[in-house]
Amino acid sequence: MKIVVDAMGGDFAPQNVIAGALDAVKDYQVPVTFVGPSVTIEAELKKYQYRKDLVEIVHAPEVVAMHDAAAVVIRQKRNSSISIGMGLLKKEGYGAFVSAGNTGACVAGATFILGMIPGVDRPGIGCIFPSLKKITLIIDVGANTAAKPEHLLQYAKMAKVYAREVMGREKPSIGLLNIGEEECKGTDLEKEAHKLLEEKEPNFIGNVEANEVYTGKSDCIVCDGYVGNITLKVSEGLMESVGKLLKREITKGIKLGKFTIPKNMVAAVSAALLKHSLKDLKKSIDYSEYGGAPLLGVNGLVLISHGRSSPKAIKNAIRVAKEQIEHNVLAKIKEEMVPHNG
Amino acid sequence: MKIVVDAMGGDFAPQNVIAGALDAVKDYQVPVTFVGPSVTIEAELKKYQYRKDLVEIVHAPEVVAMHDAAAVVIRQKRNSSISIGMGLLKKEGYGAFVSAGNTGACVAGATFILGMIPGVDRPGIGCIFPSLKKITLIIDVGANTAAKPEHLLQYAKMAKVYAREVMGREKPSIGLLNIGEEECKGTDLEKEAHKLLEEKEPNFIGNVEANEVYTGKSDCIVCDGYVGNITLKVSEGLMESVGKLLKREITKGIKLGKFTIPKNMVAAVSAALLKHSLKDLKKSIDYSEYGGAPLLGVNGLVLISHGRSSPKAIKNAIRVAKEQIEHNVLAKIKEEMVPHNG
Repeated sequence: MKIVVDAMGGDFAPQNVIAGALDAVKDYQVPVTFVGPSVTIEAELKKYQYRKDLVEIVHAPEVVAMHDAAAVVIRQKRNSSISIGMGLLKKEGYGAFVSAGNTGACVAGATFILGMIPGVDRPGIGCIFPSLKKITLIIDVGANTAAKPEHLLQYAKMAKVYAREVMGREKPSIGLLNIGEEECKGTDLEKEAHKLLEEKEPNFIGNVEANEVYTGKSDCIVCDGYVGNITLKVSEGLMESVGKLLKREITKGIKLGKFTIPKNMVAAVSAALLKHSLKDLKKSIDYSEYGGAPLLGVNGLVLISHGRSSPKAIKNAIRVAKEQIEHNVLAKIKEEMVPHNG
Repeated sequence: MKIVVDAMGGDFAPQNVIAGALDAVKDYQVPVTFVGPSVTIEAELKKYQYRKDLVEIVHAPEVVAMHDAAAVVIRQKRNSSISIGMGLLKKEGYGAFVSAGNTGACVAGATFILGMIPGVDRPGIGCIFPSLKKITLIIDVGANTAAKPEHLLQYAKMAKVYAREVMGREKPSIGLLNIGEEECKGTDLEKEAHKLLEEKEPNFIGNVEANEVYTGKSDCIVCDGYVGNITLKVSEGLMESVGKLLKREITKGIKLGKFTIPKNMVAAVSAALLKHSLKDLKKSIDYSEYGGAPLLGVNGLVLISHGRSSPKAIKNAIRVAKEQIEHNVLAKIKEEMVPHNG
């Protein structure tokens, strides 16, 4: 099964996309199909040596900008890499679509072109959050900013399959993001979703407070897309500021008890130590380690990567897409959403 | 003007509360009134030497637990430190109330006992967020989880006065927390609030994305209490995890190029360096540096401190309360909310 890659998606496309995808081809022997303006893709591919039998190009002349309105893209840019790439998933032999492009356009394109899985009303973006113990899948982080309680139940059921098949959790726990532990907490959405989840989802463990997102308390956490997006972006912004603050620190002199060691004496060692610490820390927090965010609920495997994706992030997204295909995640989600009777 | 202090508020009451308040008495010569069971307060006060003429005790036999439901507290525990303490603000000579206790009970108590300022429909908790450049006031972080657009406009106007009088910003900028820069982003609340703010608040600078909270882009940021609380708690949880991860790092060996220096050799120096970095970092992020969160909109000065407040946090909350009294913040907010005509 080929993995369709949006060659024009992201702030550093096509360079980072093609570099990361060719790494995936090399390391995982996975066939990829680049979608985008063929001249641009061919020019970029010339810089590399790679297995030609595993790389295909499908021409898509139009390019979606990061700020293009989603609805406009789907209606007016029918020859974009997103529209044509999604369309390929309906053909034999194409297993998943990976894009670091315009998130709204990917969600709208997937919904319009692939359609929804029976039993699911709205797509949800699942995002892998790192934690002290193990990773957590939070859904939705931005596809659906007007979620209803039943949407959160649907997210819970899909996340459960994903956590079992891709994250390897035997009996994945499901939490509801909230501002308190008690079931009476939150807005009407959380109160009603709490009732519904308790009634219909045996793996539901109750509310998870926002300060417990990074403790690994729950395998999966469901929430409205607006709140999920705020959670994701606040975290990104805070980590960026923390990184800058730490760097600022190592340019100062260091106080050890009564003595101040001037900065030129400690610069080398502290820089090395902090660089090391920050590297491992960044690896623990960095979303690129876990590849793209699965768009769950649409009738096809779609992974949305960060707009600023590095080649490594693209490579990892393709690895995750491959795992999803091998584990037959789409079929298993469909089965979960329409239970067999008798 | 005396500052009323809830002696029984918080996870480490009365110890931390009394220790911090007495530090404030000593350093700022501010008169404080402890409210709570007088026997308990007197026993704790015996451990210290302090200026007796600046310390008063008002007996309140009932204690509010951190998990007590707010409505129940106000109806049934009329002799709690929160109820009696708030009541003092209606008397001559009492300028502000500081509590690290049950937030919901403080909000409900303030609303019920002090009432609202004319022109304000709902109270909002303003919380000081640190950033790379300067602090930012975010309102609301949890008082009102069903905000309407006009509530956000009211928060904006109150925050503006607070930022000018307490934070020293000449012309405070006001942002709207959102998931994108464009005015079409967000839920119906944000879309309508954007319109209203643009129309009625000259200092409005548009949407502030969640990843820009920690860059100091705006002096004040308004949002619904549910989203604000998630923003606050996600940040707290992430910082706690980052701290633990950094500590975990320094117990490992350090790789410098090809060489791995074993942990016993680098432990001392790296521990010292990281401790130093973490200390300054923590200071930049730590809410206790900025004292309690002002509860704006109620007819009295109320500061809510973190339940886990250290003595330093209590001391700083009292300092901020003193500044609010000196700057006549309450009168100035009232003036802002009911503009004089002609």
